[in-house]
Amino acid sequence: MTVLVFLDPAFPAGRVADASAPALMATDQGATRGDGIFESMLAVNAKPRKVQAHLDRLASSARAMDLDIPAAADWQLAIGTALGAFAKAAGTESGEVVVKLIATRGVEGANRATTWVQASAPSPVGEAQRRDGVDVLLLDRGYDSSVAERAPWLLLGAKTLSYAVNMAALRHAHAQGADDVIFTSSDGRVLEGPTSSVLLAHVQDDGGVPIKRLITPALDSGILPGTTQGALFAAAKAAGWELGYGPVLPADLMDADAVWLISSIRLLAPVNTIDGTEIGTAEVRTELTAELTALLDAALAATE
Amino acid sequence: MTVLVFLDPAFPAGRVADASAPALMATDQGATRGDGIFESMLAVNAKPRKVQAHLDRLASSARAMDLDIPAAADWQLAIGTALGAFAKAAGTESGEVVVKLIATRGVEGANRATTWVQASAPSPVGEAQRRDGVDVLLLDRGYDSSVAERAPWLLLGAKTLSYAVNMAALRHAHAQGADDVIFTSSDGRVLEGPTSSVLLAHVQDDGGVPIKRLITPALDSGILPGTTQGALFAAAKAAGWELGYGPVLPADLMDADAVWLISSIRLLAPVNTIDGTEIGTAEVRTELTAELTALLDAALAATE
Repeated sequence: MTVLVFLDPAFPAGRVADASAPALMATDQGATRGDGIFESMLAVNAKPRKVQAHLDRLASSARAMDLDIPAAADWQLAIGTALGAFAKAAGTESGEVVVKLIATRGVEGANRATTWVQASAPSPVGEAQRRDGVDVLLLDRGYDSSVAERAPWLLLGAKTLSYAVNMAALRHAHAQGADDVIFTSSDGRVLEGPTSSVLLAHVQDDGGVPIKRLITPALDSGILPGTTQGALFAAAKAAGWELGYGPVLPADLMDADAVWLISSIRLLAPVNTIDGTEIGTAEVRTELTAELTALLDAALAATE
Repeated sequence: MTVLVFLDPAFPAGRVADASAPALMATDQGATRGDGIFESMLAVNAKPRKVQAHLDRLASSARAMDLDIPAAADWQLAIGTALGAFAKAAGTESGEVVVKLIATRGVEGANRATTWVQASAPSPVGEAQRRDGVDVLLLDRGYDSSVAERAPWLLLGAKTLSYAVNMAALRHAHAQGADDVIFTSSDGRVLEGPTSSVLLAHVQDDGGVPIKRLITPALDSGILPGTTQGALFAAAKAAGWELGYGPVLPADLMDADAVWLISSIRLLAPVNTIDGTEIGTAEVRTELTAELTALLDAALAATE
């Protein structure tokens, strides 16, 4: 089931559209040029999580694209309408719902963004990967890690609809028997997954006291700021973890006690292998994943 | 005016759709992921030009994307239907029509491409640029010129719907007062425009006999094979021009007697300036543009 709610000045709480019928113009530049932006967030029991972080990032993507989109309050109302309609159709408010926010440059010549909220059930694949972990390939993203600053037209900090390369990288991984991808820069830095941020953990024993360190690539390498990574880092810090921001090299992943792909819908997916090599041990991965998942769940519940 | 014709097994000649009403599902992966491919071709007096070259490139893009699309014959029928409907609505077969072919990965989970043909009037901007030329900026595309071969998931030889970067580069140029862009690789090679191929000409005097040479960047640098560039090269060769295939450096553009952006709709647009520096002289640009435009028009008319 999918619920669609278009942002529309004539409908302050959003205009509910029939998701089984065509709702977009074929000349919309979202469809003809991948010219638009999006966010995906998780709602639990009809409450969207870290909605402000997503709305902030949507606004930041819109600025990078010179795209004029509705105010955060309008999105909030449409999200509420979508989740209400979804719960009504499902007969329950319980459970997880994927909420996508999409803004395109609209129909050619119309000079008005097309904006909508989509609510749908999460894929069972993501849930299985949270539990069982993923096998990952390292793939070259083609860009060097300094290009984002010198070439803003590459839109590296924006979450655009132009995801064909991300989807092709995932298909490439699937064809090799892997589940997911970690992109590297052409100068050999670890970047991000096609739909996730990358985390790694090191645990050291300091005379009986474990020192736990959580590391993610630095944003200046041209990656998207991860809203879930941000929430986890804040929670981990409060729980006594040390935090680090890359440069991260592939060798750092291979030497880690655990590596995760982290994103809003799938949350923490432990990486079992990278290019066929096991990361850490199953026991440590399981233990650290359970610890960080508990921290993350509490942090995310606090943002509802 | 826009005419839409969807490829649909139930309608062998294509299903005409109302272009003023929504025709696409909001969950189509063309709209949500830029996950699809396209071609743009010019029809003159209701006859599409070099349609086979476009259908071949569409098929090649589909292979690069693992996308299953209808056979060329189905596209041909839909193109005929679209041009017939456009001429009927316009009240004439005369003049230029832009024909776009679009294939997306379809609605999430449906496992069937969404495919359509769109016929519309060309923008007056393109016609003016053919006549008056364009001012161009060189912008870094971020990729080095060898990445296409080692990273096929970057889809560099495919004409995908994920054009957000191309559109952002054009907006960047417009904001600087320029009209268009020539992308360079991170290792300093000339690549292509966001919606065009790049050509340059050198004219030498060999004891009273002019030697004319037409040069374009080599395909292995990760650019799209230009169907119009291909047609012009064949015609220019037959007319006695020498042909060359890059590597092309920015200095080669600056030293050229003329530079053009060439594409299916706008055809040959002479480049007046690059980064503010005039290319050759207005007199030579005008003369060479007239000569090559005549060759191109004859070559394209022969493909109708």
